[in-house]
Amino acid sequence: MEIARELAKKQRSISVAEFFERNKHLLGFDSPSRGIITAVKEAVDNALDACEEAGELPDIFIGVRRVSDDVLRVAVEDNGPGIVPEQVPPVFGKLLYGSRFHQIKQSRGQQGIGISAAILYAQLTTGKPAVITTRTDPREKAYRFELMVKTETNEPDVKSMAEAVWDRPHGTRVEIEFKGSLVAKKRLLDYLKFTSVVNPHARLHAEIEGESILFERVSSEPIRCPRPIQPHPHGIELGTLKRMIQTDADLPLEDFLIERFSRVGKKAAALICQKAGIDARKKAGKLTHQEQKELLDAMQSISLPAPPAHECLSPIGEDLIAKSLESEFELDFVKARTRPASVFSGHPFLIEAAIGYSSRMPHDERAQILRFANRVPLLYQQGACAITGCIADINWKQYGLQQQGLPVGPVIILVHLASTNVPFTSESKDAVAAIPEIEREIDLVLKELGRELKSYLSRRERKKQAEDRARAICAIIPEIAAKVSEIVERPPLDTSPIEGRIMRRLVARRRISGDRVRIELRNYTDRRVDLTVFEISEEGAPDPSIAPDFSSGNEGDFTRAWRCTLEPGESWQVEYSGKGRGSIDLRGIEEPLKLVIDDDR
Amino acid sequence: MEIARELAKKQRSISVAEFFERNKHLLGFDSPSRGIITAVKEAVDNALDACEEAGELPDIFIGVRRVSDDVLRVAVEDNGPGIVPEQVPPVFGKLLYGSRFHQIKQSRGQQGIGISAAILYAQLTTGKPAVITTRTDPREKAYRFELMVKTETNEPDVKSMAEAVWDRPHGTRVEIEFKGSLVAKKRLLDYLKFTSVVNPHARLHAEIEGESILFERVSSEPIRCPRPIQPHPHGIELGTLKRMIQTDADLPLEDFLIERFSRVGKKAAALICQKAGIDARKKAGKLTHQEQKELLDAMQSISLPAPPAHECLSPIGEDLIAKSLESEFELDFVKARTRPASVFSGHPFLIEAAIGYSSRMPHDERAQILRFANRVPLLYQQGACAITGCIADINWKQYGLQQQGLPVGPVIILVHLASTNVPFTSESKDAVAAIPEIEREIDLVLKELGRELKSYLSRRERKKQAEDRARAICAIIPEIAAKVSEIVERPPLDTSPIEGRIMRRLVARRRISGDRVRIELRNYTDRRVDLTVFEISEEGAPDPSIAPDFSSGNEGDFTRAWRCTLEPGESWQVEYSGKGRGSIDLRGIEEPLKLVIDDDR
Repeated sequence: MEIARELAKKQRSISVAEFFERNKHLLGFDSPSRGIITAVKEAVDNALDACEEAGELPDIFIGVRRVSDDVLRVAVEDNGPGIVPEQVPPVFGKLLYGSRFHQIKQSRGQQGIGISAAILYAQLTTGKPAVITTRTDPREKAYRFELMVKTETNEPDVKSMAEAVWDRPHGTRVEIEFKGSLVAKKRLLDYLKFTSVVNPHARLHAEIEGESILFERVSSEPIRCPRPIQPHPHGIELGTLKRMIQTDADLPLEDFLIERFSRVGKKAAALICQKAGIDARKKAGKLTHQEQKELLDAMQSISLPAPPAHECLSPIGEDLIAKSLESEFELDFVKARTRPASVFSGHPFLIEAAIGYSSRMPHDERAQILRFANRVPLLYQQGACAITGCIADINWKQYGLQQQGLPVGPVIILVHLASTNVPFTSESKDAVAAIPEIEREIDLVLKELGRELKSYLSRRERKKQAEDRARAICAIIPEIAAKVSEIVERPPLDTSPIEGRIMRRLVARRRISGDRVRIELRNYTDRRVDLTVFEISEEGAPDPSIAPDFSSGNEGDFTRAWRCTLEPGESWQVEYSGKGRGSIDLRGIEEPLKLVIDDDR
Repeated sequence: MEIARELAKKQRSISVAEFFERNKHLLGFDSPSRGIITAVKEAVDNALDACEEAGELPDIFIGVRRVSDDVLRVAVEDNGPGIVPEQVPPVFGKLLYGSRFHQIKQSRGQQGIGISAAILYAQLTTGKPAVITTRTDPREKAYRFELMVKTETNEPDVKSMAEAVWDRPHGTRVEIEFKGSLVAKKRLLDYLKFTSVVNPHARLHAEIEGESILFERVSSEPIRCPRPIQPHPHGIELGTLKRMIQTDADLPLEDFLIERFSRVGKKAAALICQKAGIDARKKAGKLTHQEQKELLDAMQSISLPAPPAHECLSPIGEDLIAKSLESEFELDFVKARTRPASVFSGHPFLIEAAIGYSSRMPHDERAQILRFANRVPLLYQQGACAITGCIADINWKQYGLQQQGLPVGPVIILVHLASTNVPFTSESKDAVAAIPEIEREIDLVLKELGRELKSYLSRRERKKQAEDRARAICAIIPEIAAKVSEIVERPPLDTSPIEGRIMRRLVARRRISGDRVRIELRNYTDRRVDLTVFEISEEGAPDPSIAPDFSSGNEGDFTRAWRCTLEPGESWQVEYSGKGRGSIDLRGIEEPLKLVIDDDR
């Protein structure tokens, strides 16, 4: 008894702020170099969310300035809708306070923890309050707050509040000062770069220790802000249903189902009530525990359309993903896929992915993996992420890559999870938890992309083999011809038409003999070919036997082009006076079908 | 302005229970199969902590019973000190409530989240309250509570409370009913097995779906309960210091330093005050922000002994680790190390580790990794754990193992982190976060063990090579000798001394001829050898030419031993009447130096 009494004396409630102060690594504040990235990320995510909600094109400034040896001052300023003064203290000075937790829609911030956690970390390491400046309208005043988090109670502690002079017509500026280090500056820039890649409508302007970096927007279309939806009957649990019933106790069951759930209309509601054996007019609050259970079973047993994911989710899109990857990395091949939306535990989600191949990247290193969740790049804990797990679980050898856990080769793999509730493995939002439904979708899309990669690599390999074969034959035929000519004592033969015939290609040949230049085409393919012959030369062509369709240039730099059409077996030629000193190229015919032999080369 | 007003309407406080209900995967309740293990783990961890605090030998019952197809009822009962009735509702019905959060000592539970989270999960999936029975003393009454967590407020919701009849004189029983699955039953048993391995003083009795399993205690010594200590000056941050100062504002600075910090005595306190340039008699609460900063700098710049880790930590110990590994796995080699205590962010911690080698385990699979934190086995998220990361970062090839990320070979690696604050990567306590100080210690101990393994494997390899060489020579020399004897027509020669001479070993030979047994030793090594010859035989030795120094046995099972010393080149022999029927062994000389030839074998 005495021990129990002793123990009881030590029992205490722990505020969530104390909990996260102690476990700051859970929020991504485990080290000074990591802290700076987390702080910027939380502030920028909030800024993007706010602009999206207001339909504004984001214009975000990120400033990082060294205050002393180990103290940095971070400022993030946006042109969002601003925050009404009463809300500033709880939004910034209280963990678990926000507008997005109870809404079912895709957003970057979800929990109302991030920015307050950054402020908590700042006061823990430097004891300094955060400074918030905000204005909601050019006709309203701007306000400046100095505030902290009261750790013991998780309540805001406003140190000062005053009207302020500010040049932004509306928006919010957050400034915090904390122990931080810029050793991971590259990662910070990566975060900004990849954020700009998946948010093409945003302009990010960073000033980092005096260095100015601008990520300009490439689209001036604000992205459509996802709309919140009601929960879907298939994804709900008994405890949640009970709570919803308590809130709407007076609603008749039928209305409760129709109004509070997505995809439930009059017909579905009637069917659910019938299956559960409950009168549709009974008030929701009057259901017994047993009836609630049966209601849930009925809700989950009838077939319903999936949640309206197009309303609440905002995918990046296949084109944009492919384009951004191509612009960031010089790719030979890229393919992107956006999967149809799916559901886990009632939360709609969808997976987008892309795979890119570049022969210019290292062949013996692991594939580069780019992970995104709700348009936010994930930079840490790659090993703990379900995305990485899915990539490692696929047998990439069957898609033409080496593999050591992860695929090895000159490949980039991008995966984006968009969901109304991204299941992160911790509050620092670095890694996606291993949810079977999500893993299945990632697996499917990666295999689909794997097949595309495989077929690209096979085509590439076939083309390479064909080239090798052609080169081998072209090397041997003239020698044989020369030997034969020698033996039979005849002048040497032009073997290129033979090569063309063997290879079934269109052969273009430019010969220079004395003061004459001749271009000959011969179509050995089995199809009619429309093409253009371009000649780039130091000389003009004074007397061409066929006038070029196009011609330009002067002083040692001339270009001319002839359009022509050749049926299978047909040939074409043009001649003019000159010494050569140039080269030809064929357009309108694909690489494996053409063979260019140029005396000048 | 209007948008800001609209957004403000949606702003809300989120209770920590709501947060974790939505993010139940953070607590280890991501799936029904995982849920059961997490629930049992949380309850058993609490039970062990409670018994430890009361100095009781834990006697814990774990029951898992199927209620319906997908619903399990879990009961965990302990003989701990019990809980006073007033404390039952908050302890079980409120997240972030507990006695261990503010104490600096090693314990399994830290945050006051685990068991309430299990109850939250139960009510979410089945809507059923948890049942708690507890008694603090045989002279007191037992009480039975039915309770839930009010999700919106994170407050306990007591459904019923009554006196109860209970046969335990003191202790606590928790029963919860939730959607669960036993597909991962093996993992549940693993959890219990490994828990019993590192808690040798505990008896765990499990009844799982009718199957009864007992993990009996192997030690009847309760483990010493770690004692809480004060924070160490080197590990404190400005925010924490400010808070401590607020609490003890009236204490003179000197007393504040001595009483509120560990390892600060009168001398150290005076030195700190002097370095900070603050009067030691000034009240702590009167310090300015600038003085607080200077105080912190001074505290962290003076050299102090490390925190008294032996008080607040409870390592398992090298012997026990080695013994448990040996009993669980048939090992050829095992080595355990307990590192000296160290500190991260002011939290004392220490690393224990062991490496075991068993030629009976598969040679081409990855090493088996056993991870423990504060005597609790870690079963999930191996890939996300700093322990795994450290193991993978070591170049095991230099220690004689193959490696594919993790080491490959018939090897077991155990790592135990004991700390007053284990930095888990999430609230589900599955994986240790990558804290540089901890990684450094793990790295050091593993490299030390790696060297031990390497030297074992080298000895083993050398021994094998020496054996192979000896066998090859011993095979050929007698044949040569026989051929030579035949040619020169002389009787066959005894070649064993030659073998010994070639091999530079001590040769022991037991010959049986007729009714005489003779044991001969010859020292072909280059050093003096002190050794004991043991003979185990079915017969006694009636008339030994040298009396044994020791002799025992009867009825077909005799042992005798002769001690002798041989200088290099010297020989020794003993003879007696007998038929042999036994074997000899040499002690006091290492394997590669001895060669035993026994006619009886």
